[in-house]
Amino acid sequence: MPHTSKVPALHAINLAQKSALIDQQWSPRVVAEMNDYQFKVVRIEGEFIWHSHPETDEAFIVIEGTLRIDLPHGSVYVEPGELYVVPRGIEHRTAAEGEARLMMIEPRGVRNTGHEGGERTADNDVWI
Amino acid sequence: MPHTSKVPALHAINLAQKSALIDQQWSPRVVAEMNDYQFKVVRIEGEFIWHSHPETDEAFIVIEGTLRIDLPHGSVYVEPGELYVVPRGIEHRTAAEGEARLMMIEPRGVRNTGHEGGERTADNDVWI
Repeated sequence: MPHTSKVPALHAINLAQKSALIDQQWSPRVVAEMNDYQFKVVRIEGEFIWHSHPETDEAFIVIEGTLRIDLPHGSVYVEPGELYVVPRGIEHRTAAEGEARLMMIEPRGVRNTGHEGGERTADNDVWI
Repeated sequence: MPHTSKVPALHAINLAQKSALIDQQWSPRVVAEMNDYQFKVVRIEGEFIWHSHPETDEAFIVIEGTLRIDLPHGSVYVEPGELYVVPRGIEHRTAAEGEARLMMIEPRGVRNTGHEGGERTADNDVWI
């Protein structure tokens, strides 16, 4: 992308405000890009499906609520202001009791359901 | 890196707690990696030097305080919970009145002073 030809906007991206604009859960929305990576905000509640991304690590930063990440050997609870990186190839399942709002960081084009696919696969590359 | 051979830790990284452990300002400390990118926390106060990174965009997320990013065409103020991405090749200067604590995300090996170098160049790849 010809980044250097663009004049960057003079305002920051408020993650809580962006997440509040999303009209449905489990639908990641892109808020910014860094090289070939995307920052996506998402609202989740309940449990996702087990999946993995063989090609990439995946970072989660919690904005509101509590994110639970189930891993093969246990669960991690991620609170607002906390970061967790799921390594590539590790099976995981995101979950939240009550709604959680989070930001994910991963390469452009990564599918939310990883190698599993299926009905919970979200549209990719939708901006908000 | 042989990520899949590692069992990921079952605890999240608290960014405010990590930033509180840093003993001096303008000294980025790595807290996590995602593929070949690093998450670094840093405490800043006053003004840095003007520089750019011709090879990469650079993302900033504010943890505490207010980050000012001076750009050729104006300044951006970034508050806690906000994100800003400086595009590659764009001259910029980070600054804060009073201390700000932030997280930077960029490829491993990026030098804090970019193409400028000089006495304010920090040690790279120091973890906390």
